[in-house]
Amino acid sequence: MTKPMRSRAGGRAARRALRSAPDFEMLPGLTNKLPMCELMDGSQVEAIDAASMDILENVGVHFRDDIALEDWRKAGAKVVGEMVYLDRGLVRELIATIPTTFTYHARDPRKNVALGGREAIFVPMTGAPFLRDLEDVRRNPTLDDLAMFHKLSHMLPAMHSSAHHIVEPYDHPISQRHLRITYSSMKHSDKTFMGMTTSPKNAEDVIEMCAILFGEAFLEDHPVVTGNCNGNSPLVWDETMLGAMRAFCKRKQPVLCSPFVLGGANTPASVPATVAQLNAEALSALAYTQVIREGAPAIYGHYLSTVSMKSGAPMAGTPEISQMNFMIGQMARYYQVPWRTSNTLGGAKTFDAQAGYESASTLSAVMHSGANYIWHSAGWNEAGMHCSVAKFIVDAEQCAMAYRMAEGLKWDDFDVALKAVPDVGPGGHYLGHPHTQENFQQAFFMPELFDNNSIEQWIAEGSVEITERALNRAKTLLSQYEEPKLDVAKDEELLDYIARREREIPAADELNQSY
Amino acid sequence: MTKPMRSRAGGRAARRALRSAPDFEMLPGLTNKLPMCELMDGSQVEAIDAASMDILENVGVHFRDDIALEDWRKAGAKVVGEMVYLDRGLVRELIATIPTTFTYHARDPRKNVALGGREAIFVPMTGAPFLRDLEDVRRNPTLDDLAMFHKLSHMLPAMHSSAHHIVEPYDHPISQRHLRITYSSMKHSDKTFMGMTTSPKNAEDVIEMCAILFGEAFLEDHPVVTGNCNGNSPLVWDETMLGAMRAFCKRKQPVLCSPFVLGGANTPASVPATVAQLNAEALSALAYTQVIREGAPAIYGHYLSTVSMKSGAPMAGTPEISQMNFMIGQMARYYQVPWRTSNTLGGAKTFDAQAGYESASTLSAVMHSGANYIWHSAGWNEAGMHCSVAKFIVDAEQCAMAYRMAEGLKWDDFDVALKAVPDVGPGGHYLGHPHTQENFQQAFFMPELFDNNSIEQWIAEGSVEITERALNRAKTLLSQYEEPKLDVAKDEELLDYIARREREIPAADELNQSY
Repeated sequence: MTKPMRSRAGGRAARRALRSAPDFEMLPGLTNKLPMCELMDGSQVEAIDAASMDILENVGVHFRDDIALEDWRKAGAKVVGEMVYLDRGLVRELIATIPTTFTYHARDPRKNVALGGREAIFVPMTGAPFLRDLEDVRRNPTLDDLAMFHKLSHMLPAMHSSAHHIVEPYDHPISQRHLRITYSSMKHSDKTFMGMTTSPKNAEDVIEMCAILFGEAFLEDHPVVTGNCNGNSPLVWDETMLGAMRAFCKRKQPVLCSPFVLGGANTPASVPATVAQLNAEALSALAYTQVIREGAPAIYGHYLSTVSMKSGAPMAGTPEISQMNFMIGQMARYYQVPWRTSNTLGGAKTFDAQAGYESASTLSAVMHSGANYIWHSAGWNEAGMHCSVAKFIVDAEQCAMAYRMAEGLKWDDFDVALKAVPDVGPGGHYLGHPHTQENFQQAFFMPELFDNNSIEQWIAEGSVEITERALNRAKTLLSQYEEPKLDVAKDEELLDYIARREREIPAADELNQSY
Repeated sequence: MTKPMRSRAGGRAARRALRSAPDFEMLPGLTNKLPMCELMDGSQVEAIDAASMDILENVGVHFRDDIALEDWRKAGAKVVGEMVYLDRGLVRELIATIPTTFTYHARDPRKNVALGGREAIFVPMTGAPFLRDLEDVRRNPTLDDLAMFHKLSHMLPAMHSSAHHIVEPYDHPISQRHLRITYSSMKHSDKTFMGMTTSPKNAEDVIEMCAILFGEAFLEDHPVVTGNCNGNSPLVWDETMLGAMRAFCKRKQPVLCSPFVLGGANTPASVPATVAQLNAEALSALAYTQVIREGAPAIYGHYLSTVSMKSGAPMAGTPEISQMNFMIGQMARYYQVPWRTSNTLGGAKTFDAQAGYESASTLSAVMHSGANYIWHSAGWNEAGMHCSVAKFIVDAEQCAMAYRMAEGLKWDDFDVALKAVPDVGPGGHYLGHPHTQENFQQAFFMPELFDNNSIEQWIAEGSVEITERALNRAKTLLSQYEEPKLDVAKDEELLDYIARREREIPAADELNQSY
């Protein structure tokens, strides 16, 4: 894993110590210095904007929720039945109050991160109904498995969040899971985390638990938890999501407004038209966040794949997904709203080469697109049906590598480094040069999960492929895990809250209900 | 595999036919419309240029070749022993006569491709001493194996070249191999190909064979074969490479001037300083091509990896390799010279997830860097020690996907596609809409080598992983191969040439000499 730069005494022993010392220090939030990949000129951005506004004004958006319809009426929108028609002037006025950047607060304030503009974070995958475990066995997850992923998220430097239900814990009643999931995120890591939005009540529980952890007053002006609200493309927002959205927005906690796009199935068979529809959907929800509470932070979101017309299955790593990420980045910047995308997606059934290609293709597009909230950054495979421990570890290192690529060139020792050229001279080598010895740790990233030895050495070491290497790494990490202790009083208060709510929420016959 | 866009009658049967018909039509040379990823501002480009020129003027370049030293003396360079010191004015004057773009001619003129500016081509890997064959067995290759790769290169739409010794055929004497390799490239494919530069005499044989194939007079103003000349970094060019370079340049055939950089081992431990040295090396050879023959086409080249300081092994897919590709692209554009990079590199021992991550990371960086001659675009694994048939097939599809990403957005049916939005309306689906039915083939790339089915279906179909899928695809392709017949008279003349040269070139005891 990459080490933060530091000045230190040289020498082989010091380097060896540095190399072997476990380093779990979180990388600061990324300031992405890559030039953004912008496929559209200004008039094309305006064409997408105009098409989206036409959709909002003339096709309308279906808000399947009485409170939202009433809110929209009061806000001045045209409401016909459950259809809401949004004038572009109203949309622009509403989204103008969304903060362009904000700080996302962690339990350990040293792990606070910025979002918006060029500031970005990596967040692990969530929502997997299965895992591939430490032995690469595919099975239903438990709360212990979820805790394991929260521990790994805590320890992996490029992960800026422990998210929430990385995997879905089946050993606890579904109606009460959100309490245990939230507690696990809070307890096993002191990084930022996410909040469950599986119902309005669940979302309120999350916010109450955050109020315990951070203090009621603190929440008002400090985003501490993000909630994702998926749209039903095309152009539908449902009661569950809208209710959860209100629970977050009212308390000024940031909501990800995420159309759920399966390109070609629930959008037109055209990249620009798909983006126009997705953009309309995102805008309709972003605008609603400001109806709920003006000035509440919100994030332009999406889940995005294209669909195989042979099978209807979602695909990952396809060229149009990359193009759409580039375009959506332009739209979000046009509206000056932080935006979320999905990272390292894979559709493979195992952690094979397909998963590698898909994940790295997606990661790269995401970095060049300038996304802020880079979700699903570790573990996602089988189109999200499972979270793989092995892939979780490798993806996290890939994110660390992308971080390095995006943090910019290191020019500060350019002149000193150049002095090595005449020192070494034509035909020489640099390995023994003092500048090399001082700088190799920082100059070139050495991935731990990639094997670059000769095949002879690789065979001598047991022909270990990447899945096994990654699982070994996970086991080592977990053996070194140290819990970032919760304040005892807060811990008790959280457990009391959970106990009370679990008494209140019926749990019968739900244990084995599928996700 | 992706289909070229075409107007055609609609209907399900037509679509099924289109989907199942083998399509081996070569994609036209790529016009890369992606914005280039430029990490340096103008002053930083000038800082690299100045540092490189300082190296050329003051550190000098070691030309281990008497003819080159004499050439440089005559050209006005300062020559001391075997060291050549190049004044920046002389370098700029010389490289100014390198064509900024040129057409690279194929046996089938419909497969000619442009190089330079935004014009780019994909070329398969070359030089592997081992292959992983159609049964994924790692072994030494034969001429038949080489022919197989030439056939696959011929059939895979995104490959614009059959290259030369994709694998090293061990069943023929090493001193005569170049003849058989060149003939195999010419015979099994009518795309562009490369010429061996393993010695000056071998390079001359290649050019003579090209004169037979294309006609002596045609060569003078038509690039038909590219030759790669590796430098020995730091700052050395040897007799073999320089002699081969002369054989190509004299006949106006393009040479790739390729410093061979193992970042940190034969360059300083600094990304910008490594680029400054690499740039100096490339400029020294590019300048020499114009000493040999003014106006000869030449390509700014490099082989580039970073080195693991734990083992000394070259690495692939690391962030600094991406950064250096972005920077080298800027330098080549600054000098207005077409440039070459390496694609889809992998250091894995098998076709596992590591290979996938490494290859896709490299491919992505290459696309955003704006490289023109995108070499090693299929098959490379184990740091180039083997060419994998399975990876060859998957990489070629990845290149087709990158091609799609880079060829730009399709706006022509934007208004028509948008009309589907009110047609379908909120909550509907697009699968049955006429626009979808007409356009899904073109709108979203469907990778054939990726499995996106449910795990249940995948298991029912035998749990086939990507390596086996790709090998099955290779076998199918080979069963459908049709040789693009050589003109009979030219074929006989080529075979006569080979027979004569094989009588002239001693072959004793060389059969099993290792590469």
